[in-house]
Amino acid sequence: MILNERELHEECGVFGVFNVHNASELTYYGLHALQHRGQEGAGMVVSDEERLLGIKNEGNVRFVFPESVLKKLSGQHSIGHVRYSTTGGGGLLNVQPFLFRHGSGDFALCHNGNIVNSRQLKTQLERSGTIFQSSSDSEILAHLIQKETRRDRLEAIKEALIYLEGAFAFLLLTKDTLYAMRDKHGLRPISIGQFNGGYVVASETCALDAVGATFVRDILPGEIVIINKEGIHSSSYSPDVQEKICAMEYIYFSRPDSDLSGINVHRARKACGRQLAKESHVEADIVIGVPDSSLSAASGYAEATGLSYELGLIKNKYSGRTFIEPSKELREKGVKMKLAPVRSVIANQRVILIDDSIVRGTTSMRIVSMLKEAGAKEVHVRIASPPIIAPCFYGVDTSTMDELISAQHSVESLRQLIGADSLAFLSMEGLTEALGHNKVCHACFTKKYPTHLYDDLAEANKDGKF
Amino acid sequence: MILNERELHEECGVFGVFNVHNASELTYYGLHALQHRGQEGAGMVVSDEERLLGIKNEGNVRFVFPESVLKKLSGQHSIGHVRYSTTGGGGLLNVQPFLFRHGSGDFALCHNGNIVNSRQLKTQLERSGTIFQSSSDSEILAHLIQKETRRDRLEAIKEALIYLEGAFAFLLLTKDTLYAMRDKHGLRPISIGQFNGGYVVASETCALDAVGATFVRDILPGEIVIINKEGIHSSSYSPDVQEKICAMEYIYFSRPDSDLSGINVHRARKACGRQLAKESHVEADIVIGVPDSSLSAASGYAEATGLSYELGLIKNKYSGRTFIEPSKELREKGVKMKLAPVRSVIANQRVILIDDSIVRGTTSMRIVSMLKEAGAKEVHVRIASPPIIAPCFYGVDTSTMDELISAQHSVESLRQLIGADSLAFLSMEGLTEALGHNKVCHACFTKKYPTHLYDDLAEANKDGKF
Amino acid sequence: MILNERELHEECGVFGVFNVHNASELTYYGLHALQHRGQEGAGMVVSDEERLLGIKNEGNVRFVFPESVLKKLSGQHSIGHVRYSTTGGGGLLNVQPFLFRHGSGDFALCHNGNIVNSRQLKTQLERSGTIFQSSSDSEILAHLIQKETRRDRLEAIKEALIYLEGAFAFLLLTKDTLYAMRDKHGLRPISIGQFNGGYVVASETCALDAVGATFVRDILPGEIVIINKEGIHSSSYSPDVQEKICAMEYIYFSRPDSDLSGINVHRARKACGRQLAKESHVEADIVIGVPDSSLSAASGYAEATGLSYELGLIKNKYSGRTFIEPSKELREKGVKMKLAPVRSVIANQRVILIDDSIVRGTTSMRIVSMLKEAGAKEVHVRIASPPIIAPCFYGVDTSTMDELISAQHSVESLRQLIGADSLAFLSMEGLTEALGHNKVCHACFTKKYPTHLYDDLAEANKDGKF
Amino acid sequence: MILNERELHEECGVFGVFNVHNASELTYYGLHALQHRGQEGAGMVVSDEERLLGIKNEGNVRFVFPESVLKKLSGQHSIGHVRYSTTGGGGLLNVQPFLFRHGSGDFALCHNGNIVNSRQLKTQLERSGTIFQSSSDSEILAHLIQKETRRDRLEAIKEALIYLEGAFAFLLLTKDTLYAMRDKHGLRPISIGQFNGGYVVASETCALDAVGATFVRDILPGEIVIINKEGIHSSSYSPDVQEKICAMEYIYFSRPDSDLSGINVHRARKACGRQLAKESHVEADIVIGVPDSSLSAASGYAEATGLSYELGLIKNKYSGRTFIEPSKELREKGVKMKLAPVRSVIANQRVILIDDSIVRGTTSMRIVSMLKEAGAKEVHVRIASPPIIAPCFYGVDTSTMDELISAQHSVESLRQLIGADSLAFLSMEGLTEALGHNKVCHACFTKKYPTHLYDDLAEANKDGKF
Repeated sequence: MILNERELHEECGVFGVFNVHNASELTYYGLHALQHRGQEGAGMVVSDEERLLGIKNEGNVRFVFPESVLKKLSGQHSIGHVRYSTTGGGGLLNVQPFLFRHGSGDFALCHNGNIVNSRQLKTQLERSGTIFQSSSDSEILAHLIQKETRRDRLEAIKEALIYLEGAFAFLLLTKDTLYAMRDKHGLRPISIGQFNGGYVVASETCALDAVGATFVRDILPGEIVIINKEGIHSSSYSPDVQEKICAMEYIYFSRPDSDLSGINVHRARKACGRQLAKESHVEADIVIGVPDSSLSAASGYAEATGLSYELGLIKNKYSGRTFIEPSKELREKGVKMKLAPVRSVIANQRVILIDDSIVRGTTSMRIVSMLKEAGAKEVHVRIASPPIIAPCFYGVDTSTMDELISAQHSVESLRQLIGADSLAFLSMEGLTEALGHNKVCHACFTKKYPTHLYDDLAEANKDGKF
Repeated sequence: MILNERELHEECGVFGVFNVHNASELTYYGLHALQHRGQEGAGMVVSDEERLLGIKNEGNVRFVFPESVLKKLSGQHSIGHVRYSTTGGGGLLNVQPFLFRHGSGDFALCHNGNIVNSRQLKTQLERSGTIFQSSSDSEILAHLIQKETRRDRLEAIKEALIYLEGAFAFLLLTKDTLYAMRDKHGLRPISIGQFNGGYVVASETCALDAVGATFVRDILPGEIVIINKEGIHSSSYSPDVQEKICAMEYIYFSRPDSDLSGINVHRARKACGRQLAKESHVEADIVIGVPDSSLSAASGYAEATGLSYELGLIKNKYSGRTFIEPSKELREKGVKMKLAPVRSVIANQRVILIDDSIVRGTTSMRIVSMLKEAGAKEVHVRIASPPIIAPCFYGVDTSTMDELISAQHSVESLRQLIGADSLAFLSMEGLTEALGHNKVCHACFTKKYPTHLYDDLAEANKDGKF
Repeated sequence: MILNERELHEECGVFGVFNVHNASELTYYGLHALQHRGQEGAGMVVSDEERLLGIKNEGNVRFVFPESVLKKLSGQHSIGHVRYSTTGGGGLLNVQPFLFRHGSGDFALCHNGNIVNSRQLKTQLERSGTIFQSSSDSEILAHLIQKETRRDRLEAIKEALIYLEGAFAFLLLTKDTLYAMRDKHGLRPISIGQFNGGYVVASETCALDAVGATFVRDILPGEIVIINKEGIHSSSYSPDVQEKICAMEYIYFSRPDSDLSGINVHRARKACGRQLAKESHVEADIVIGVPDSSLSAASGYAEATGLSYELGLIKNKYSGRTFIEPSKELREKGVKMKLAPVRSVIANQRVILIDDSIVRGTTSMRIVSMLKEAGAKEVHVRIASPPIIAPCFYGVDTSTMDELISAQHSVESLRQLIGADSLAFLSMEGLTEALGHNKVCHACFTKKYPTHLYDDLAEANKDGKF
Repeated sequence: MILNERELHEECGVFGVFNVHNASELTYYGLHALQHRGQEGAGMVVSDEERLLGIKNEGNVRFVFPESVLKKLSGQHSIGHVRYSTTGGGGLLNVQPFLFRHGSGDFALCHNGNIVNSRQLKTQLERSGTIFQSSSDSEILAHLIQKETRRDRLEAIKEALIYLEGAFAFLLLTKDTLYAMRDKHGLRPISIGQFNGGYVVASETCALDAVGATFVRDILPGEIVIINKEGIHSSSYSPDVQEKICAMEYIYFSRPDSDLSGINVHRARKACGRQLAKESHVEADIVIGVPDSSLSAASGYAEATGLSYELGLIKNKYSGRTFIEPSKELREKGVKMKLAPVRSVIANQRVILIDDSIVRGTTSMRIVSMLKEAGAKEVHVRIASPPIIAPCFYGVDTSTMDELISAQHSVESLRQLIGADSLAFLSMEGLTEALGHNKVCHACFTKKYPTHLYDDLAEANKDGKF
């Protein structure tokens, strides 16, 4: 799928720094490397061991942190956040990190992921007098921690985390300690690196590379990492862990240069492309991919089949959210804002089109039609992942059940809808084979959710899921 | 080379519309498709057959034309412009189109290219009382046309064009006629398309495709195309024409989905990559390209050799001009803003790195060093064009003679400088072979300039060229 | 004193609307009329009886509510706020109204004033697990109300208000009810008006006039006004009320066209000027006032003495916060940004200069020196209020004890410091005489605070007060 | 009249600096002091003796020159401009100064005023091949100067000025010389000051005061002042001079702290008020003025009659061009954006309302009605200038003949229209008496234009004048 028509939305990326001179600058570049995980909001809280100072706003990293602002955020520890969506009414109020001022010590929180029992927890907290100012899971965790005032902070955090069911990678910063926590299934990625005597924590390893940090290790499912002036410590809030990293991180979200559980994303995608060729090849002239996320799979497919890998679709890199939408008149005339077929590559060819996934099917339909208009003799769509038949409750904004085209249609029926000459998906077994392990959450392909869902399905649907 | 470290700069792109309902909207999308030719300024002048109304500003298309402004530009004819650079002191004053108010009829002008005898023409015009408000070649043409007041407009234009030596694609709009003109060597590309009964003119065919126009033909070297309510007419201002389209348009500037003189840019680049493999292959494990402009050549090279084509370098697509530069401290630690190696793809591999060209060498040096740090066993640099040994005077902002690394160093000496294990360039013959014709200007590779230069070389150097 | 060198800062202004078609538009103009009470932040929450929707930002009313945003805030009830200062670290987080989402019903809150026991209340609330996200008194009231969950809302509000000591005018909006509350001393003004069948509440009557509402009455000290679809009701949270409206509202803050407790501000100021003439007249040629707030007093003084009232000082109305400060070099040469003497009016005259108050004395010093440089033979400073000898704890940001020049110096010593030929203040008795009543808080002139201060003076000083 | 409903528009203000360290900074403050003469555009060109560098934009001084930009404009000489209106189609293209690049030496030009034979001059210049890029008189002067290439610059300037008929104050800057020129009737004001060894030239003396410069003298009608490193020189381009400074500069445009031909503006206005009382007093209770420009006259009137001078109308100083206009619904309900009556001052009073002038009458009508609604028993309108019965062709944007209410109606008929209980204007003799001299242009009161008009009246009307 192409970026500006993303039908899948990651919620966030987090980045933390401990004990690095000018932590805000490092965080800036770290968040920049995670910008693909969210462009609609960004924030940062910095500690100089005395106090916490934060800035956040709607917009991308570049917009939120002009040089003049960045310079004011002095300190050696920090946490930062990029956010996909500010929808949900809260606007700026939902942008992270959240900064909580409290007599027992201020702290800041940000996270990536989604808590599935947030509604229940919120109701319970409200019954005991809590008021919420946002709809963010981070605010829930903050209140849970603060309720546990009789204990020390680590104990309070552990106690609070036990209540949370779902997917999360949390960063919590006090004036002198950085905590990083991952849910017990490890649904969302988070890794640690070293930088010049200090530490760096990031949603993806690409951000460690980007800032020149040395990768140390992934944070483990159910682990709490505590970093303070005495060094780095590990604790666990649950004995019941089972690694189930989100398959979509491999397939679509993460940057190709990131490694997830030790496996490079580009390599994984290329392997998926090769496996796809093994499973469902068809005679054709050229292989093309939908930029940018499907190009690795496409080159894998081409290599496996010996077909020529071509640049058949071009993405206009100057597109963006604020572009004016074409009028109906121009749209019908074929004005293209974001994706264009390379006519002289496509014309008179039998084309194998590789895409990473199909969500609602509208993009696929448009691309197939675009290629046919550009003169393709045949268009064979090959999807480098299994059909998505169920919504995600762990922080990926897929559509509701009704909108998931593969939940409503057979492959053949879908083929007809999108107008392809043939259509095939990677099998679930093929995905496992390509990744080389089965420690992934594949609930969206199989409906086998690794956690309780709490809200029953009917309820969830009201929320726009089922 | 990668975009944000471009060492070669195209000057401009032009787009014109005649007789299309809501011409400004079409021009907006057309300029958007040409945005890669210039991001620093944009402008548009629209005619409703009564009067010419224009808007221009520094910034990209999206910034310059907010919806509220675009809606005010009503009319059925228009010309628009994107500009690379506003350097030269004039700032906004040099952004095009220029709108000239005159009792004999207002007109607007914009162009892509560079006039080599502009200094001489300017001096002559000033001697007869002309005052210049910008340093743009368009203003020179306007004054030349206006001096010829005894003739009709077409005759005046022809007379004026005869004085111009150099590279240009001009668009001139009066309230009821659109003129498109190309220099007699056809150094800068410009093509015509049809749209819904009207006409569209664009620097590259990708812009015709983007707006849904049907390609008609390229404008010929030395041709003046006149479009008015009686249809489309052709005239010529010089009998002495010889096609010499800029080779760099194929190698670097144009979008891969454009066709230049009937040859697709992506295909041409891929052919260069294959030819390069034929000329200078070396044993290795993987082939990678520098994104984005070298990826076609890299995949051609990989196909020709049977090696695996890998995503070895990732460009951060959220980078941009306004990003804060890393401090020296962080730069030394390895902070990367724009380009990152994919460590797990590169480590322990013998890498063939394809780039489209080398100008100053600094980018190549940085990339080779980046790859070695990421664990590459060997890095073999292959350049999909010949060494650049001479500056361009036709609108490409290469560096001066002193800065062109290939003008100062042998290939072996350059190899040492950039730290590569081997280095090879495509031969001039190989380039011709790959393009399939020799109707290109290759002055920057051979010093054989197709026009007079007027300013002698010493003079040119003061101007920052030699 | 002049606006852009204000040494006294009001904290806020509030404006509420109930049952008026397009409440947001009315609120916009109401806040605009209260803009003098705060230019650094503004916000609004609107109810359409279904849900509360809000917008707020740093900046003035014009900036915060562009037309596109205003249009989205549809509904018939609303509360809005303008805020002087966003200092205190919170930035946007401290801009009001606050919107609290709660299962028992969302509500929004904003206020003008200052709670003197906020520290104590905050500590108590934190001990029971409350977390604060801002340093605003509104958040304290929200938590106090929410703690009282066993009662209905009005009872909960009353219970909560009992804890608050200090000065406040609160507006609270639920989806179907507007509450307006005033502290038991009535330190901050707030009035009710009628508009087209609905109601309007505003910090000053000038805002009622500006929107075309009909003044009904002031809200009484200790009163809670409840407006809902059944009409307007009054309740009281404390039997112990005693009117003590802030004297500075008359002297400096309020707009001249507002009436406070039935007395017009311009008239009150003019009466102060007349009284001042009675108390301390000296022979002179002309009377001038410091624009804008001292002009009424100056004309009163002139009338009482028969002297000519002249425009001796001009304020540049295009000055503003974002103006570039003059370099030291230019400042020394006499560059004036905000206030200029009218040389030909001043030269060779014995000038009586009327100012409303002296806080730190620096502005007075500058103005006297400016007048002397402009040729004034004598400058007699007359202050239309008593010396400020104590800080305010009720929402006026005077300086600390150390900085209050009248707390540190006798009148004669102060006269020497500012370089005046004579100096006199209005007496406390004279102020009472001029206002015609003594129901004012004059703590800053007499140290007689109408409430407990809670934080002892030493503590207060750490906070920058004593 | 009040600022935001101005019905008279000054066109511009100019400010020049010669030989002052950091001339751009001084120009910034100088233009700021002239901001009342134009808020829609501003610009500045600076010379460092090597080259001219300029910046200009739509918007006020604060917006056009952010600190970062101002710092780049280094040099010791400069000219700057504020502009009222960017209407006329040209937008930014008409903002001044204009910078002309020419082999014989670059120069910049800006002006205040209006050339009445510009149409004729433009046609003549176009016939000889000149192209215009703006509709500004400055561009005409530049071309006229440049046509005279056989002479030295001063001679060329003199020759060019002879062609110009109308009102102007021009500043022309070359890299090492500043020229200041005033039309032979001295219709527009311009004065010289000294600053720290260098020179300052400004449209009004208030700008000399604001920057701390010492007033030297006014530039004389028909004079050219040349300032270069050899000092200050005077020349004249016409023997036929006759001082006729625009009466409206006294009555309305200039800042009260400026002196025009040695007479202070505030004093002149106060004298007009006194004279008005002498001519047409009526029994009443209070005197009020329309802020800001009528306050001086109002206080003069009050003093002359012994009546109380009151603040009866308040201007909201936070209004501005970008404010959202009230909906019809709210307007009818009486929402007031800019001007509010002080109800408790007005109610039950017989009010004398002083205004400086009446152009179209709509503002007067609105104010009278506002005062009556606020309870005024009687409203007697007194205008501190004669009726405006003819349009201005010298740079004041009055309305056309049809719109000038005094050209269409008798005083009694006008009184009825605006709903006043009585109405009187200052007599022409009274104005002369009050100013103390008759060297003013009073064409708008008497139709006696001091220059040829060139365009006959019918023609002028098409242009929106007659």
